[in-house]
Amino acid sequence: MAPQRHHLGIDLGGTRIKAVRVTTPGDLIAEANLPFEDRNRNWADTIRDFVDASSKAHGPLASIGVSAPGIAAPHGRHIAYLPGKLTGLEGLDWTSFLQSAKPIPVLNDAHAALLGEVWQGAARGCRNVFLLTLGTGVGGATMVDGRLLKGHLGRAGHLGHLSLNFEGLLDDVGTPGSLENEIGNKSIPLRTDGRFSSTEALVTAHRQGDADATRIWRRSVRALAAAIASLVNVLDPEVVILGGGIARAGAELFEPLREDLAEFEWRPGGSQVRILPAQLGDLAGAYGSAWNGMRNNLGKAD
Amino acid sequence: MAPQRHHLGIDLGGTRIKAVRVTTPGDLIAEANLPFEDRNRNWADTIRDFVDASSKAHGPLASIGVSAPGIAAPHGRHIAYLPGKLTGLEGLDWTSFLQSAKPIPVLNDAHAALLGEVWQGAARGCRNVFLLTLGTGVGGATMVDGRLLKGHLGRAGHLGHLSLNFEGLLDDVGTPGSLENEIGNKSIPLRTDGRFSSTEALVTAHRQGDADATRIWRRSVRALAAAIASLVNVLDPEVVILGGGIARAGAELFEPLREDLAEFEWRPGGSQVRILPAQLGDLAGAYGSAWNGMRNNLGKAD
Repeated sequence: MAPQRHHLGIDLGGTRIKAVRVTTPGDLIAEANLPFEDRNRNWADTIRDFVDASSKAHGPLASIGVSAPGIAAPHGRHIAYLPGKLTGLEGLDWTSFLQSAKPIPVLNDAHAALLGEVWQGAARGCRNVFLLTLGTGVGGATMVDGRLLKGHLGRAGHLGHLSLNFEGLLDDVGTPGSLENEIGNKSIPLRTDGRFSSTEALVTAHRQGDADATRIWRRSVRALAAAIASLVNVLDPEVVILGGGIARAGAELFEPLREDLAEFEWRPGGSQVRILPAQLGDLAGAYGSAWNGMRNNLGKAD
Repeated sequence: MAPQRHHLGIDLGGTRIKAVRVTTPGDLIAEANLPFEDRNRNWADTIRDFVDASSKAHGPLASIGVSAPGIAAPHGRHIAYLPGKLTGLEGLDWTSFLQSAKPIPVLNDAHAALLGEVWQGAARGCRNVFLLTLGTGVGGATMVDGRLLKGHLGRAGHLGHLSLNFEGLLDDVGTPGSLENEIGNKSIPLRTDGRFSSTEALVTAHRQGDADATRIWRRSVRALAAAIASLVNVLDPEVVILGGGIARAGAELFEPLREDLAEFEWRPGGSQVRILPAQLGDLAGAYGSAWNGMRNNLGKAD
């Protein structure tokens, strides 16, 4: 029997690098969680050392895939746009940098997380699905008709920047009253008049019967429901995945959300979208990168 | 030289049938605009008679494509969902009904209009584009990475049902404060406290210096700008096409819209989406249907 082919997926974040080494069917051989400090491009050196160490420990790799914040170039060889963070990432050609004989494709991190969840997580086998990551900000990615949407610049899937109040304050990219501003962690002080500093604290107070906390939290969930209902009309998924720290609120999130969706969601012929928590946690991007690297090298010799 | 192949595109509306007979490169051989009354399925008979007459007048057809309101089934042989209108359309298999030896694909009408504009209209050659039709209601369709988005049920592209005010009134499908309710003709009486009965009347009053009309119209345009900015973040087009009767407001629409987009649109690296009026008018759906019929019969003998 031929030895199993191994694939490496590397997900570069703002302070950590997550990686998985998997077989072609997706079995996990090894995982890594590597902290770094964002200076002197040492994220890049950390990744290079890790790739070398992984090959020494477990043998050669059939493919490598990378994901990172920012907008990936349409040809997928580098991140084209990420101002102000991870100096040196913009324009870095990963295939050259890692001296790979095979192409190393790079994806936007949210795009990779969705591919990971479709391959090995909450949306296994789905062809129409979108992911919302509810954290400091709100990110997302979309698959329609079995294809990840990339778009003209590679920006498709920035679902946090959907306006839910067109007369509201503008967010980081100019969207008035955006989903990100209605539910992302970074707007918690603004939404709570400075009473709370995190969604976790807000939801804990709500759970303990704090009427103000309940009102504020319910309003945020209702905005999320309106966003999901809107995106269902635009993208027509069968499944919506919710990830990120805020999705860990569990029933405090999912129960009121289901109530609001019963009101807002268009359900032609009785159809109904399933709302599911993400399953791969902070490894989703690494899994998706591994899948993307593998797919880009299909049919090529080792 | 072999004779030119001819393709028929048929767009079934609520009261009229539009059709074009075109060559493979898209030159127009004939067009038709056929009224009907929606009873006893006489729209269907009108179409059958027209196909027969067209073949007699201009010779045999290399392909036929159809579009109609409602949600087309994923396999594209019939309209799967259209409650309360055009009795007999739901489930009608067009290939069988027109006794065609070749498959006759059917598309949602807005999907067809977008394909028409991409083939022969405002978005020629674009791979990332969406269409908003601003009329009684607001419809739409989306192409990303060169593919028309259909989705799980075939519902993708219902861009009028985007929430722009999550605490607003629910529209026909349950969306709170939707784009359709903010700018579609049918909400004009509600938006103007009964003063105006059409967008045309509202825009005329605005042009004549009526301050109330100006305030209401500017608010509607601002909602449209927020919707476009949101959809740019989700779908990442290079071009947005505006069609439907309201787009005929011309500069009264496009100028304030450009101002608002300068505020709301995320323009990474200085990129900017082009906002263009539709070019094919009410023939867009017929052109798109013809293209779809042709493409579905590529490589097959006449």
